[in-house]
Amino acid sequence: MPPALPPLHCPRCDAEVRDFAGCAVCRAEGVGVNPVPPAADLSGLSLDSFPGGPWGWPTALPVPGPPVTLGEGATPNIRIPLEDSPRGGEVVVKYEGANPTGSHKDRAMAVGVAAAVASGADTVAVSSSGNAAAAAAAYAGRAGLRCVVFTTPAVPGPLRAQIDALGGVRVVCGDHDTRQAALRESVERFGWYPLTCYTDPSPGSNSYANEGYKSVAYELARDFGESVSAVVVPTSRGDLLSGIARGFAELRSAGLLARTPRLVTAEPDTAAPLAAALAQRDRARQERTRIHHRLSPAFSLGERTPAWQALNALWQSDGAALALPAEEYLAERQVLAGQGLFLEASSAVAVRAARHWAHDHGGLVIALGTATGLKDTSALPAPGEAVDRIPELAELAIH
Amino acid sequence: MPPALPPLHCPRCDAEVRDFAGCAVCRAEGVGVNPVPPAADLSGLSLDSFPGGPWGWPTALPVPGPPVTLGEGATPNIRIPLEDSPRGGEVVVKYEGANPTGSHKDRAMAVGVAAAVASGADTVAVSSSGNAAAAAAAYAGRAGLRCVVFTTPAVPGPLRAQIDALGGVRVVCGDHDTRQAALRESVERFGWYPLTCYTDPSPGSNSYANEGYKSVAYELARDFGESVSAVVVPTSRGDLLSGIARGFAELRSAGLLARTPRLVTAEPDTAAPLAAALAQRDRARQERTRIHHRLSPAFSLGERTPAWQALNALWQSDGAALALPAEEYLAERQVLAGQGLFLEASSAVAVRAARHWAHDHGGLVIALGTATGLKDTSALPAPGEAVDRIPELAELAIH
Ligand SMILES: [Zn+2]
Ligand SMILES: [Zn+2]
Repeated sequence: MPPALPPLHCPRCDAEVRDFAGCAVCRAEGVGVNPVPPAADLSGLSLDSFPGGPWGWPTALPVPGPPVTLGEGATPNIRIPLEDSPRGGEVVVKYEGANPTGSHKDRAMAVGVAAAVASGADTVAVSSSGNAAAAAAAYAGRAGLRCVVFTTPAVPGPLRAQIDALGGVRVVCGDHDTRQAALRESVERFGWYPLTCYTDPSPGSNSYANEGYKSVAYELARDFGESVSAVVVPTSRGDLLSGIARGFAELRSAGLLARTPRLVTAEPDTAAPLAAALAQRDRARQERTRIHHRLSPAFSLGERTPAWQALNALWQSDGAALALPAEEYLAERQVLAGQGLFLEASSAVAVRAARHWAHDHGGLVIALGTATGLKDTSALPAPGEAVDRIPELAELAIH
Repeated sequence: MPPALPPLHCPRCDAEVRDFAGCAVCRAEGVGVNPVPPAADLSGLSLDSFPGGPWGWPTALPVPGPPVTLGEGATPNIRIPLEDSPRGGEVVVKYEGANPTGSHKDRAMAVGVAAAVASGADTVAVSSSGNAAAAAAAYAGRAGLRCVVFTTPAVPGPLRAQIDALGGVRVVCGDHDTRQAALRESVERFGWYPLTCYTDPSPGSNSYANEGYKSVAYELARDFGESVSAVVVPTSRGDLLSGIARGFAELRSAGLLARTPRLVTAEPDTAAPLAAALAQRDRARQERTRIHHRLSPAFSLGERTPAWQALNALWQSDGAALALPAEEYLAERQVLAGQGLFLEASSAVAVRAARHWAHDHGGLVIALGTATGLKDTSALPAPGEAVDRIPELAELAIH
C-alpha cells in the first residue's frame, strides 16, 4: 500500500487490508467485502457552500491533492413527469451523463488517479466493460499516467472509440476471467495501480477511488436537504451505492442532515444478486448468496454475488432491492428519450425502479441516471417511418 | 409572429422583422442579418447568485415561462496545460459537452422550444447537420411537441442514433438546398415552428432561441469576472458568438462588468467566411464577402457568407478571426483527448485557436468546447498497437 494514503479496514470484520483484493478474512468465510478508508469528519462544513464534485470538499477525501479534475460532478437534477402518482410521489433523475466522459465513473476515477499519483505509479490499470475504462483513461491522461484497459469484446462501439480516443490502451481478453487474471498479473509483476478489482467475485473497485461517490450524497443533501425519501441506484458491485451510503453517513455524523434517505438498488432481473440476497431470511445467508447471471442489455450491470458493502447500505438505510425485466427498462429508456432524456440502458433500470417506488411509497425519489445514452446506441429500437409518424411529411416536395 | 413574444428588429438597419428569414431590407442590399429581440435589463441582478443556464435569469429571456429545461448550462471550466506560454497566457475550455444532449445547442433549444410553446405550435422543425437537431428533438420531447429534422446523409452515426432515440423524425434530403426548401415549405404550409433558418445564405437560427447563448457570457462573468482577455468561439452562422456578445453587452450596460473580453472566431480554413471578411479593407465589403467553402472534418462548421451579427460581434469587441487547417485541429483533438478531454472536431478548432491567441497575446483565454467527442467518432485516428505503446503487455498471459 502507498504510505501516503490512510490504511483500509474491512467494514465487516475491521481487519486491515493491504491490497486491492478485498478482505481476506471475510473472503475465507465466503463473503466478499471491500475495505474502506476512515470516514471523513465533515463537522464545521456548510452544505450551502458545497461546490459539488468529489473535490468540492478535499478534506472529505483520503487522497492528497492537487486535485486531478476535468470538471466532474455538480450534475443536474431533472424532474420527470409521472402519469400516475397515487401517493404524491415525485421522481428526479440526477443526470450523471453530464460528467466529462459521460458517466458517474468520473467521480471515482478523479480520486483514484490522484491516489495512483500519490502512490508513485506511472500506469493505472482497469478491468472494465466500458464506462470505468473511459473514465480511467481520461483522468490518467489528465495526470500524465498511462492507462491499460483489460476488456472483452462486449464493449459497445461508441464507448470503444471513446476509450481509444482518450488514450486508453485496450487489451481485449477472451472472457471475464482472463481479463481479471491479466489485471492481477500486471499489478503484481509491474506494479501497475489497479482502479478496479482483480479477484472474482469482485468485492468492488479501488477503495480510494470509490470515495469520490460520496459527493453524490453531498450534492443531494445540498440541493434537497432532508426532503429526499429514497435514492435509487443501478447496482452491479455496489461501488456507487455504498459510496452514497458513506456520504450520507458522514453528513449525519456531522449533524448536517438529521434524516437520510432509504437506499434502493435497481438490478436487471437477469443479474440480480442483491434482490436474491434480500429474499433470504437471515444475514448470514444473504451475505453468501450466489446466483446464475445472464447478460442483459444493461451491459454495465451484472454480478454473481452481492457485494457486502451494498447489502450493508440497504440494511443500514431500511433499503430494498428491485429487479426488473428487460422489457420494462428498455421501454423506460424509450419513454425517457422521447421526453428528452437519453440514458444508457443501465440508468433506465434505476429510473423504472424509481417510478415503482414513487408509486408505491410516495415521496421525493431520486434516480441515478448514471450515463448518457450516447455510450451505447446498439439496443435502440428502429424508429418508425417518418410519414407514419407525421403524415404531413408526405405532402412536402423533398426530393 | 407569435403575439406573446416581443418583436424582432434588425441590429443593422433597425427594421422590424416578422418572419424567420432574416432582415429583408438588408438582404436586398446583399447582407444577411438575423434580427434580435430587445436587450434585457440586468440591472439589480447579482452575478454571485446567478445559478447558470439560460433559465438562470428568466427575466433576461424574451420568452415567457414555464422553463423548458433538462438541466442545461452551468458547464465546467477546464484549464488545459500549455507547453509554451511566452506571455503567460492561459487557456480554459468551457466544456459544453456537459449539456444534456452533449452540446451548446441545448442552451438555445431550451429557449426556442419555450418560444414554440408560447406561439401555440404543435411541431418544431429544424434544418441541421447534427447537434441542433438532437437538442431540438430533446426539448421538443420535453415539452410534448413533435420535432421534424430536415437533414442530409452527412450526419455521423452516433448523432443520428441520438436524434432517432430522442424522437426526432429525420427527413433525409439530398442536399443542403433541398433541406432548406423543405423546412421553408413546412413552415409556410403547416405552421411548423422553425428553430433554424430556411433561407440560403442563412442569417442565423431562431432569434428567440439564440438568446439562450447569452447565459455563456453570464456564467463566464460570474466565474472569472473581468479577468478574461478573450473568448474563442467555433463559428459557422455565428449564433453562439453573437449570443455571447449580446450577453456581455447586457452585463456591461447593467454595470455588472466594467470590461468585457475580445471575441475571437475560429473557423476551419476550408470554410472561413469571417476570416475572409476581416481581410477585406472596409465594412461594406466585409459584409458582402462570398467564399467557396468545402466540407471539413469539423462537420458542424461551414458557411459561404459571414453572418453580419458575427462580424458585428468582432467589430464591437476589437475581435479577430482565425482560420485553421484540418491537420492542426485534428492534432489538437488528439492531444486534448490524450489529456482527458474528448471533444468534437469543431470544438478542437476553437481550442487550437485559443492556444495561438494565448501564445501571441497572453491573458486568460476561454475556448468554447462546444460538443462531446462521442457525437462523432468517425474522424479519429486508429490507435497504435498495444505492445508498441506499452511493451510490458507482451509479457502478460492474456490469452
Ligand atoms: Zn473482513
Ligand atoms: Zn436590416
